[in-house]
Amino acid sequence: MYVVKSPLSDENLKTVSEALQGALVDLIDLSLVAKQIHWNVVGPRFRSVHLQLDEVVTTARGHSDTVAERAAALGVSPDGRAATVAVGSGIGVTPEGWVDDAAAVSALVDALGAVIARMRERIAATEEPDPVTQDIIITITADLEKHHWMFQAANG
Amino acid sequence: MYVVKSPLSDENLKTVSEALQGALVDLIDLSLVAKQIHWNVVGPRFRSVHLQLDEVVTTARGHSDTVAERAAALGVSPDGRAATVAVGSGIGVTPEGWVDDAAAVSALVDALGAVIARMRERIAATEEPDPVTQDIIITITADLEKHHWMFQAANG
Amino acid sequence: MYVVKSPLSDENLKTVSEALQGALVDLIDLSLVAKQIHWNVVGPRFRSVHLQLDEVVTTARGHSDTVAERAAALGVSPDGRAATVAVGSGIGVTPEGWVDDAAAVSALVDALGAVIARMRERIAATEEPDPVTQDIIITITADLEKHHWMFQAANG
Amino acid sequence: MYVVKSPLSDENLKTVSEALQGALVDLIDLSLVAKQIHWNVVGPRFRSVHLQLDEVVTTARGHSDTVAERAAALGVSPDGRAATVAVGSGIGVTPEGWVDDAAAVSALVDALGAVIARMRERIAATEEPDPVTQDIIITITADLEKHHWMFQAANG
Amino acid sequence: MYVVKSPLSDENLKTVSEALQGALVDLIDLSLVAKQIHWNVVGPRFRSVHLQLDEVVTTARGHSDTVAERAAALGVSPDGRAATVAVGSGIGVTPEGWVDDAAAVSALVDALGAVIARMRERIAATEEPDPVTQDIIITITADLEKHHWMFQAANG
Amino acid sequence: MYVVKSPLSDENLKTVSEALQGALVDLIDLSLVAKQIHWNVVGPRFRSVHLQLDEVVTTARGHSDTVAERAAALGVSPDGRAATVAVGSGIGVTPEGWVDDAAAVSALVDALGAVIARMRERIAATEEPDPVTQDIIITITADLEKHHWMFQAANG
Amino acid sequence: MYVVKSPLSDENLKTVSEALQGALVDLIDLSLVAKQIHWNVVGPRFRSVHLQLDEVVTTARGHSDTVAERAAALGVSPDGRAATVAVGSGIGVTPEGWVDDAAAVSALVDALGAVIARMRERIAATEEPDPVTQDIIITITADLEKHHWMFQAANG
Amino acid sequence: MYVVKSPLSDENLKTVSEALQGALVDLIDLSLVAKQIHWNVVGPRFRSVHLQLDEVVTTARGHSDTVAERAAALGVSPDGRAATVAVGSGIGVTPEGWVDDAAAVSALVDALGAVIARMRERIAATEEPDPVTQDIIITITADLEKHHWMFQAANG
Amino acid sequence: MYVVKSPLSDENLKTVSEALQGALVDLIDLSLVAKQIHWNVVGPRFRSVHLQLDEVVTTARGHSDTVAERAAALGVSPDGRAATVAVGSGIGVTPEGWVDDAAAVSALVDALGAVIARMRERIAATEEPDPVTQDIIITITADLEKHHWMFQAANG
Amino acid sequence: MYVVKSPLSDENLKTVSEALQGALVDLIDLSLVAKQIHWNVVGPRFRSVHLQLDEVVTTARGHSDTVAERAAALGVSPDGRAATVAVGSGIGVTPEGWVDDAAAVSALVDALGAVIARMRERIAATEEPDPVTQDIIITITADLEKHHWMFQAANG
Amino acid sequence: MYVVKSPLSDENLKTVSEALQGALVDLIDLSLVAKQIHWNVVGPRFRSVHLQLDEVVTTARGHSDTVAERAAALGVSPDGRAATVAVGSGIGVTPEGWVDDAAAVSALVDALGAVIARMRERIAATEEPDPVTQDIIITITADLEKHHWMFQAANG
Amino acid sequence: MYVVKSPLSDENLKTVSEALQGALVDLIDLSLVAKQIHWNVVGPRFRSVHLQLDEVVTTARGHSDTVAERAAALGVSPDGRAATVAVGSGIGVTPEGWVDDAAAVSALVDALGAVIARMRERIAATEEPDPVTQDIIITITADLEKHHWMFQAANG
Repeated sequence: MYVVKSPLSDENLKTVSEALQGALVDLIDLSLVAKQIHWNVVGPRFRSVHLQLDEVVTTARGHSDTVAERAAALGVSPDGRAATVAVGSGIGVTPEGWVDDAAAVSALVDALGAVIARMRERIAATEEPDPVTQDIIITITADLEKHHWMFQAANG
Repeated sequence: MYVVKSPLSDENLKTVSEALQGALVDLIDLSLVAKQIHWNVVGPRFRSVHLQLDEVVTTARGHSDTVAERAAALGVSPDGRAATVAVGSGIGVTPEGWVDDAAAVSALVDALGAVIARMRERIAATEEPDPVTQDIIITITADLEKHHWMFQAANG
Repeated sequence: MYVVKSPLSDENLKTVSEALQGALVDLIDLSLVAKQIHWNVVGPRFRSVHLQLDEVVTTARGHSDTVAERAAALGVSPDGRAATVAVGSGIGVTPEGWVDDAAAVSALVDALGAVIARMRERIAATEEPDPVTQDIIITITADLEKHHWMFQAANG
Repeated sequence: MYVVKSPLSDENLKTVSEALQGALVDLIDLSLVAKQIHWNVVGPRFRSVHLQLDEVVTTARGHSDTVAERAAALGVSPDGRAATVAVGSGIGVTPEGWVDDAAAVSALVDALGAVIARMRERIAATEEPDPVTQDIIITITADLEKHHWMFQAANG
Repeated sequence: MYVVKSPLSDENLKTVSEALQGALVDLIDLSLVAKQIHWNVVGPRFRSVHLQLDEVVTTARGHSDTVAERAAALGVSPDGRAATVAVGSGIGVTPEGWVDDAAAVSALVDALGAVIARMRERIAATEEPDPVTQDIIITITADLEKHHWMFQAANG
Repeated sequence: MYVVKSPLSDENLKTVSEALQGALVDLIDLSLVAKQIHWNVVGPRFRSVHLQLDEVVTTARGHSDTVAERAAALGVSPDGRAATVAVGSGIGVTPEGWVDDAAAVSALVDALGAVIARMRERIAATEEPDPVTQDIIITITADLEKHHWMFQAANG
Repeated sequence: MYVVKSPLSDENLKTVSEALQGALVDLIDLSLVAKQIHWNVVGPRFRSVHLQLDEVVTTARGHSDTVAERAAALGVSPDGRAATVAVGSGIGVTPEGWVDDAAAVSALVDALGAVIARMRERIAATEEPDPVTQDIIITITADLEKHHWMFQAANG
Repeated sequence: MYVVKSPLSDENLKTVSEALQGALVDLIDLSLVAKQIHWNVVGPRFRSVHLQLDEVVTTARGHSDTVAERAAALGVSPDGRAATVAVGSGIGVTPEGWVDDAAAVSALVDALGAVIARMRERIAATEEPDPVTQDIIITITADLEKHHWMFQAANG
Repeated sequence: MYVVKSPLSDENLKTVSEALQGALVDLIDLSLVAKQIHWNVVGPRFRSVHLQLDEVVTTARGHSDTVAERAAALGVSPDGRAATVAVGSGIGVTPEGWVDDAAAVSALVDALGAVIARMRERIAATEEPDPVTQDIIITITADLEKHHWMFQAANG
Repeated sequence: MYVVKSPLSDENLKTVSEALQGALVDLIDLSLVAKQIHWNVVGPRFRSVHLQLDEVVTTARGHSDTVAERAAALGVSPDGRAATVAVGSGIGVTPEGWVDDAAAVSALVDALGAVIARMRERIAATEEPDPVTQDIIITITADLEKHHWMFQAANG
Repeated sequence: MYVVKSPLSDENLKTVSEALQGALVDLIDLSLVAKQIHWNVVGPRFRSVHLQLDEVVTTARGHSDTVAERAAALGVSPDGRAATVAVGSGIGVTPEGWVDDAAAVSALVDALGAVIARMRERIAATEEPDPVTQDIIITITADLEKHHWMFQAANG
Repeated sequence: MYVVKSPLSDENLKTVSEALQGALVDLIDLSLVAKQIHWNVVGPRFRSVHLQLDEVVTTARGHSDTVAERAAALGVSPDGRAATVAVGSGIGVTPEGWVDDAAAVSALVDALGAVIARMRERIAATEEPDPVTQDIIITITADLEKHHWMFQAANG
């Protein structure tokens, strides 16, 4: 039976692993939502939004790998399967079909806003139990808030 | 209302769009399944399998983008949302938690085998309606069958 | 006297060479038209359209080289001179002078649409006589249809 | 006491050094103004304008280095300090705070126009005294006029 | 109505825009002619000439972009359409069909010679009206004369 | 009216935005001061100091972009205009004219020392209101303290 | 016992595996023959032919890997041993010793011609049994026919 | 006498410098131990372990440079000499001679575990005295814990 | 008749050319054998062995080019044709078909051992006649012995 | 007999070719002198001067190629042989043997000063006969004057 | 029990393995000493010496890997542990604490001199037993003697 | 007075320094001769010979740096000044003016032949006194003999 000796106490580990598992689901869903709109956006700003969305995908994919491997490093099995993402994501429903460019930008403002709010809670929750994990989530939040600004500015 | 004038007849378009939507769901799920096992594999072959799985992820992500944009090019909105993937994928259930390296390899043999079988049906289905789409699916199938061999050989 | 022994029968060679010569003229003109609008576009979407057009130029230049060298490989002299292009292109007249961004996008939708229609005929015409040439034209068509979508979406 | 033996007569050196010092101040300010608007622009064209402005920054930074080192090469100490730039720049006042995208483009049209006018005077002034310096300023002017066109076209 | 405020007087602008439009047509045609012979050359020196011609194409394409955008920067719409090139180029007729390597080299010597003669006139014509444009044409001429030497030396 | 919904309370936002605006002004001025001395340094250590200063410029430019965009991400307009920098910088006066190499190194020791002291205050001030911003300032401080050491060691 | 479950029927697999094994032997021999002449060519065109041959080697090595791994992907063991190549290649005997440049070019025209003829048979043979394999052989044939043209043109 | 004015109080500096000096010794020894096993490992997993160890070496070398230069930046002389490392490292004895692959993996699990435990103490110790140093050690610990997981997983 | 004036006496040339021709045949066969096993290996260590073999192929191909061109430089025609390799190689028979990973590693240990023994004889044989050739063979031997160790260690 | 039809009159050609031949000899000698001191410099500033000199070598080699090929482009045979350089260079005698760093810097100040003075005469001489050549020499002079400043500053 | 069949006799192997083990210890210590001074050097030449020392580190690390793997290739376990290095190095004691730049250069002159003297003995000792090993040590010595010169010249 | 303590005895040093100084002069002259013909070659093979000559220049420049720095490393001042090269080179007189391609190739065959003959003497002369220097000259000779073959083959 595979057991990693965690550097954290059981209680701290529970808190941290919930933060990481939650972050993983949010980030995978963010990558899927951004790709979905990347493919379905239409309108005069098509090209700008199409490209801007791929930068969100790159950020979300990179960070989802980091948080999943961070969980593994603490001895906790990460779960990034489609069904887990479908039910656990903090991002609201993305409607199917074509989406005009203004709505596409708004959808990202909402999606990023939802994920950021949950990440800020995770920053607070992990500070005491594991500053190493907290530092990773701080870095992710900085990147997400930068993307958030860029979509807000594009709708400004 | 956004309408793309498709180069295909309605009937052909229906066949082709089903093939592309099915391929999209399979490839996104393949990327998620391969990442899931990439994070959860344990055992003496950990590093080889961990790296080999990321090559599958790269293949699956690249081709999912190609088929989604191919659908858009034909005027059909692609659907790659988590819930759509969770219910529509041709890949069986991936169990949660750690997975030893031999089981990890077997899981990929099965996942790739399932996707390949469906891709071969799509090659046949699209030949007449749209040889351009068929050519894309042929290329994808060649890559998947190469990965399939490598996991089979690793279990040989 | 320079003669290349073609792997095709005379009849097949005639069909294939017409397809290749036609594709060459269309692709060179597409590269010139896209550059013309790249230089003359004005309006709020100037930068997006300006950059998007250069991607069409890159595609068209690369594929024109491929089809010309494919003709040569079959023993048929390709003709890509300005006068040949001016009279033989399948793309309609491009008006002179500045063009606003919406009209620029529409012009590309039309130009790409015209070339794609002829390419699809060439796919059908070359299937039996030379599947190698057909495969090249299928690849070109896939790229053109992707560009076509992107300009349609930008006007959507 | 550090003295560089200049290849120019005193009179010519005075003319040329004024041209270079003036160009230095204009180019540093251009880089600061472009960054200021790069950060403060909002509106549907946010991303295009944001990126386009960074290209101006790159141009202005590179050429400011060239003219400062050209002054040094002629034995004249260049002055690129903030206070010197604040009082000596040929660019008008940039208002503080957020700026919508159309106003951002107009601000660059004005800023580039102001700098270009002064650069053209420097081309005339340096022709006789130092064709080497003139050639540098000609190159800078060509780049600025290209940026100027792109912002004008974006407001066209 | 889109109008760029040109830094030149009307008279000077007329002279400069004719030079740039002429240069544009010559350079586009040079790129087409060099590609035409690149595809049609035969003989023992095939590979050398084939490669050398592509370097001319790269030069001609790069400089045609520069002169077209220079015209735009001065507020003059450039015209690089196939029909315009077919009737306005300074390069003589390129015969159709295969061309042996010595004739290919001679054709380039002639084509480059014709374009260079016209470029030298443009250097003289633009000196007073716009030294910025002149500097661009001087750079182009230097490159063309280097290519001219290499083809002359190859026939030496 | 463009308003970004900040993730911070008004009070925290005020504290954090002052820290960011102060850091922005300091970093821009540091980049200008380092360039000023980069151009004006003389003496046997010219080349070493000249190159070392450009590394400070690169650091300062990169971080000034980060803090300005961090302010924007929190909904606060950053101000990096020359006049703002000229009056608000924490770096003392840089004398005009040539500067010998030892004095150049000392000037950087002083400039970096002044900025570091203010950055350490900002680390303390932002810890509670926004750990994301604090983390950014910590990273900047680490880089500045490394440069500080290198100039101190060069005067040791 | 290692067995790969092939996606093809036994009959189809037999046809396809013969095509792939034959292609493998031809391509390895082509790489050896091209290297042999690369080392032994003499005459005024030495450098051109020497370099051109290495491009054939690169093509042949790359494609030999592709067809061998395609066979493996279908569950068929590829055989690329020297003795197998020596007896099974479709290329005629290459004489030992120095070879003058015209003869070197002719030898490649012959070798490429022989391989192309067999590849075209394989395109026909694999169309029904396995379009994935056929697509691979079509791509190889396109490359070989391009090389064939270049050597024919060099002897033209 | 060379003295760097530290931004820290004497007491804080003492705490931080002990943490940095300890980290330096641990990281240098980790790089030496990982290289030692990189050269001496034998067994079926030789290649995987051999490569994985070089990634540890790269991490350890990079971070040892960072902590040594951080100490210098605070005015404290770092000591990374062989004898200092030999007596001060937190890693237990590495036996001489060949080591089979499972033992090699276990040795790294132990070595990384020992260093991580000490790093976590340093995170706690430096939090108050110098958050800049703490942030550096947090980053190092994250990397070491990721390597730790990978070796544990490989023995799982 | 092509004759290169060799810098060696006839007797020395004979010795050296035999060494080089023998090395050429061994190295080409090594590249073919390594590829053969690269394609046919199966078992848990598939991926490691598959990749390790391609590094042998790269080494063998690079050095075979060096020794063939060294022979040519001395005026001796190298012979690297398939039939020559098939009969002259110092490597024993490679069985056809799939090979499990341990046997694959053993096969390389044997093949490299056989080639190394012959290379060491060539080092001795060429020392007096041509130290330039000897130096080349020493370098090759160092590389082969490093590969030899790595496969031995993998079977250790 | 090889004759290039020059675009210049005979008189102009004579003036221009003297300028180019003179520049060629000066630049080759500059590259040899800079290398000579690069190898022979000693003293505390060894590394800085050693590296700075190699940048002069790179500049001088690049520009010598440009002027030689410019002469060829005008139909004039360039002469860059050692004996021609030894007698025709404008640079004074470089003493043999080791040279301390201050003397090395002074030697470059003198060498660059001598070449620059002659280049400025060539700028004046070529202005009327050939502005294309003049532009090349202006660019070279700008580079040399930048190097000149850097060595003067290093001795300041 | 892991045994590599060495290509050398027992007696020769003993000589060669002592040379390699000695070289390994010297090179690891050289890398540690150079890093130690890289961090501790102070004085006007700080930056030059700091950078020059990192080049020694790169050389020493690269060659230590080569000699360790050479020992392994001959079947001899290399020992590069800290304690082994601390007692076996041929380099004298490096004093702790800051070191001024002249002393830093002298320390490297001494350290390199000591290692070179031992390397030259190893060249002599390995000539007969193993010319492959000798060739490796000759290459290392050439690099060390080049570094030695550069530090001597910097103190000249 | 700058003195490097040479690792060689005075007698050996004299022999080795003569070899290195002679090699330096030959290699610099080879670079100048190859450039001279690179600029002056005419004829159908112009492009091939022109490019091939630049590869000789690159080889000769790189190796001249190596031998000069090797001399410095042994404490011997290298002399690479134009006058020294003009009188000391082992290459015969290169005639001025244009040279047809066959003569150009022959000139290189002769020049390389002359340098190689002297290099082989230096290999013999340095073997005992300094195997490190000998190894450098062996490497140079291998490169020169490869170039020699290529020019002989081109005249074959």
